Amino acid sequence: MRYVVIMAGGSGTRLWPLSRQGRPKQLLELFDGKSLLRLAFERLDGLVPVEQILVCTGRDYADDVAAQLPELPSANLLGEPVGRDSLNAVAWSAAVLAERDPDAVVAMVTADQIIEPVARFQDALRQAFGAAEEIPNALVTLGVVPTSPHTGYGYLHRDDELRPGVFRIAEFKEKPDLAVAEAYVASGEYWWNAGMFVWRAATLLSQLDQLLPATATTVREIARNSARLDELFPTLEKVSVDYAVMEPASAGESDGIVVGVPLDVTWSDVGGYASYAALLPADGDGNTRRGATVTMDSSGCIVFNMIGPDHVVATLGLEGMLVVATKQATLVADLDDAERVKQLVAVVADEFGAELA
Amino acid sequence: MRYVVIMAGGSGTRLWPLSRQGRPKQLLELFDGKSLLRLAFERLDGLVPVEQILVCTGRDYADDVAAQLPELPSANLLGEPVGRDSLNAVAWSAAVLAERDPDAVVAMVTADQIIEPVARFQDALRQAFGAAEEIPNALVTLGVVPTSPHTGYGYLHRDDELRPGVFRIAEFKEKPDLAVAEAYVASGEYWWNAGMFVWRAATLLSQLDQLLPATATTVREIARNSARLDELFPTLEKVSVDYAVMEPASAGESDGIVVGVPLDVTWSDVGGYASYAALLPADGDGNTRRGATVTMDSSGCIVFNMIGPDHVVATLGLEGMLVVATKQATLVADLDDAERVKQLVAVVADEFGAELA
Repeated sequence: MRYVVIMAGGSGTRLWPLSRQGRPKQLLELFDGKSLLRLAFERLDGLVPVEQILVCTGRDYADDVAAQLPELPSANLLGEPVGRDSLNAVAWSAAVLAERDPDAVVAMVTADQIIEPVARFQDALRQAFGAAEEIPNALVTLGVVPTSPHTGYGYLHRDDELRPGVFRIAEFKEKPDLAVAEAYVASGEYWWNAGMFVWRAATLLSQLDQLLPATATTVREIARNSARLDELFPTLEKVSVDYAVMEPASAGESDGIVVGVPLDVTWSDVGGYASYAALLPADGDGNTRRGATVTMDSSGCIVFNMIGPDHVVATLGLEGMLVVATKQATLVADLDDAERVKQLVAVVADEFGAELA
Repeated sequence: MRYVVIMAGGSGTRLWPLSRQGRPKQLLELFDGKSLLRLAFERLDGLVPVEQILVCTGRDYADDVAAQLPELPSANLLGEPVGRDSLNAVAWSAAVLAERDPDAVVAMVTADQIIEPVARFQDALRQAFGAAEEIPNALVTLGVVPTSPHTGYGYLHRDDELRPGVFRIAEFKEKPDLAVAEAYVASGEYWWNAGMFVWRAATLLSQLDQLLPATATTVREIARNSARLDELFPTLEKVSVDYAVMEPASAGESDGIVVGVPLDVTWSDVGGYASYAALLPADGDGNTRRGATVTMDSSGCIVFNMIGPDHVVATLGLEGMLVVATKQATLVADLDDAERVKQLVAVVADEFGAELA
């Protein structure tokens, strides 16, 4: 049977102070009261029934996830006691599903993006499910057809077409510099690494047996005996699925067959304020505003007042600035510097403690 | 006997949102926990005993004034039921003091400035008291020896020296444009109008008898019968003392003798953020900061966090910006535009109501 696991971990400091340690980006109700997690969940409507959808998240976020996805069966909410990077979300999910259904085919999807049109996303997932079911030992990865030489993504170098719409993957590439990214895009042979995968649960576990046997043993034990979760999960090696499985398999270090399916969609990763604001309507001066705000002689700004209606955020004479006011923090930055918010958050945490960062 | 009345009305929107309708500039604890009012009060130490100091303010501010000046006898706190411009603060004070002491000589001083050195300020006031006591019908005004062609002040055009350090005043000038202000300063014949005056209470009342008899009658009645304050005060004509008394008297429309005493002091009127910040110490990047703040790659900024220690204000990549966060409002402005905060406050009041403005 087909299953989809939504991966919803991470903290996302680039949207600080909207996102915070206790409230990661995926749970923020950024779009008409809906979170990226909720949108990721709704994106699966018609693809698999809700009983076959799981969410893997940090345990601290489990209550918020349950509140945002009331349809989700509680047994399908996997709460990691500690963050252990993407491999272990993937490995634990595979072990849990293999335990429930030895024939489980699993799509691991992310919750960080706005993806449109949804129909094309579902078509690609169906294509990937088919490949995972029919190609022995297939590790199917999804590759976003790039629309720009984005330097913030890893890239997949596709090889020849194995079957219609399914390509061998020659190599996984780290985030490139701009010149390299431009060459990638010009060649037509590279996709953005979507961080989404489809495989049989049994295939993934077999890869772990070959590549990280300790992890394989541990996640199988956790899946059989959930009482040992808190004891065993922290012992898992912290590593990404790309580094631990996809790259070695594509290099022939296991019997996994790494293939890719193109995802020809509009892919907005809401990785920072600029990309978030681009998804919201702007006023006549090109300002993107939320909450009680006044923008006098200001243009091209992002002005968010999340404190509430008893507070007003007023700007005067600003151009291309970011102003975000929340209960815990006020951020004012030149939009050109917004990528460095992460560094700023580190200083805030250092000087004023984690509760404000 | 000599008395000093501190005038502490006004709202001061140019320091919004630090100042607000319910909390005018003079009452804000801007300097090491002391307000401008408190500093104005302490500036009188040694000049007259506290029993001879009065404060004329809006009734809504009376509790705050009493809290900041616990030494002030409560009978010396004059709370106007409604704002009626400077003439009536002056007229009511004169009537009250004339009722208490027919020989009262009154200095009306403002509470909007930082004035240094205090000794020279007191010397000028003593000189002015002497002139008011010795020159019949004297209306003594204080003129600040200008250090720049400031276009935000009115000017006094002094005439010949009547007695040592006391000059006839030829004319009161409205706020000039820059070219005119430069000519004023170059001539050496003009002072900034300090808005401070000294006169016998009886002399001021006699001027009112000649120039605004209705006001004279009303303030005498209020002084005799304070129970009628709420009924009568709102009927007073709203007008400034310059316009109603000083200008006509200097033009010979009454028997008042308008003279001036120079005030050769450093005069900082804290009329806006730039002048306020200039009075505070800056950090190594030229940022003036208050409260929990982080300023990364930011210089020449004013960053005030008045929300408290449970909130942080963080800036990134700013130059010459003003950021002020209070419980009710966050203001972000280019410092070059800070003079227009008043207009911004009007829009805030219009869109979100007076409680946020």
